Amino acid sequence: MFQDKLSACAELIQAHFDHVIGALPDLPVTQAMAHATQGGKRLRGFLVLQSATLHDIGSDKAIWPATGIEALHAYSLVHDDLPCMDDDDMRRGQPTVHVKWDEATAVLAGDALQSLAFELVTHPNAGTAQTRADLALSLAIASGAQGMVLGQALDIAAETAEEPLTLEEIQALQRGKTGALIEWSACAGARLAEADTTALQGYARDLGLAFQIADDVLDVEGDAATVGKAVRKDATAGKATFVSLLGLDAAKRRASDLVDSAISYLDMYGTPADALRDTARFVISRQN
Amino acid sequence: MFQDKLSACAELIQAHFDHVIGALPDLPVTQAMAHATQGGKRLRGFLVLQSATLHDIGSDKAIWPATGIEALHAYSLVHDDLPCMDDDDMRRGQPTVHVKWDEATAVLAGDALQSLAFELVTHPNAGTAQTRADLALSLAIASGAQGMVLGQALDIAAETAEEPLTLEEIQALQRGKTGALIEWSACAGARLAEADTTALQGYARDLGLAFQIADDVLDVEGDAATVGKAVRKDATAGKATFVSLLGLDAAKRRASDLVDSAISYLDMYGTPADALRDTARFVISRQN
Repeated sequence: MFQDKLSACAELIQAHFDHVIGALPDLPVTQAMAHATQGGKRLRGFLVLQSATLHDIGSDKAIWPATGIEALHAYSLVHDDLPCMDDDDMRRGQPTVHVKWDEATAVLAGDALQSLAFELVTHPNAGTAQTRADLALSLAIASGAQGMVLGQALDIAAETAEEPLTLEEIQALQRGKTGALIEWSACAGARLAEADTTALQGYARDLGLAFQIADDVLDVEGDAATVGKAVRKDATAGKATFVSLLGLDAAKRRASDLVDSAISYLDMYGTPADALRDTARFVISRQN
Repeated sequence: MFQDKLSACAELIQAHFDHVIGALPDLPVTQAMAHATQGGKRLRGFLVLQSATLHDIGSDKAIWPATGIEALHAYSLVHDDLPCMDDDDMRRGQPTVHVKWDEATAVLAGDALQSLAFELVTHPNAGTAQTRADLALSLAIASGAQGMVLGQALDIAAETAEEPLTLEEIQALQRGKTGALIEWSACAGARLAEADTTALQGYARDLGLAFQIADDVLDVEGDAATVGKAVRKDATAGKATFVSLLGLDAAKRRASDLVDSAISYLDMYGTPADALRDTARFVISRQN
């Protein structure tokens, strides 16, 4: 079962976080790092582990970048939730870091989680020097001002723009904001094997877009308790989303088409890629 | 002349920043990144370039980690200056990022500068896969919750502690807060050459401590216009510093002894290490 595989991966990553963060000095900032890396679907880490399996790389190696990308994702959530950003009180059904501690701790815990991400992907046990340097370089590009932060910055700019965003602009924003890390995760296994990343890149682009459309749909259809964070935020903010521009039904159809397209990139991998096919179907069926 | 060498290095690093940040999309966040990486002594970058020269590594390679460590230093200043942290309005004689733009831009620009630091140290032109992976791993450890962020966290904890810090605690705090990056910088040249870092590590530990004592002295003796940031902050906050614990004269003597000790580690390098000797003398004579 796909959900069992996903849960097993989440446990593996949690155990690795416990091991790594548990070894740090006990302070509010490290407690906040532990808090921020609890829970979540671990979708990005799952993509790393699954794409590694496809390339005959074991989880003893792949756990390092899998936990690394979840550390990077966690940092982005802690900083996103800050009062000066999205100002969210709840995340994964728990109080956000700046609510449970304070803003300074949230800034520092996010900063340290970003450092931790690079520490994990370059750990000597993560692979050869070549693959570790390659993973770190590609992660730096995916997370910075050409990737995730670019998407965040475009998102903030959109809030004060006079015209609502077009579909094309939303797609560009999304490709940075969530797409870049999803792409990195799906390609990580190929990178660990020094193999070609083209097919996984195609898969991940469509998957990332489907994921964001599903997020927009959840913001409209979900309830906060199940989703684990505030909903109806986009409509309240008058934000242009895939749903506001396409309508709910067309947005769902678009996400479903993207999932089919994502899956089509996996043909060359045969049945070992079934978990990645299931992942694509999962992102548009999930309730949180 | 030492000052000429330092200025030439600062220009080299600035040109590299212009090249790298100039290639990013033009947005408030990237403008803020450019702003935050202007000016400063470039002491950390200078240590990288000089320790590289000692090991026969040219500036074509070493400019990457030299600019990388300055990007990391710049990120730490942008986040340190935030209202929820030190709440500073001026830095290097210019308005801080959250004053010139806003807090969200400061958070994001700092985040992207950290990513940029790792992008620069792992750039294919920065060295072999082995040295790039090694530089990234050591930088991640130096900047995270075992290094710089740990120092910051201890600093924040000290503000609300009932007892003022002891000299030993201040030293531990400083070793994280400024020492870790100075150590990384001085060792980078040896790392680029896959050479032993022991001597440079000894040099950097004493240098880093002397640097922090000099900073505490400047906070007491300097004026804001020359120092380029607010002064008398420590005394106003009732903060224990090397000066408050040792007294001004003893603190200056301690810094001077540390400089002698730092220099003694460089004997094996002969005259090519003269610039590093000058650097040690410079850190306790500087006015900003």
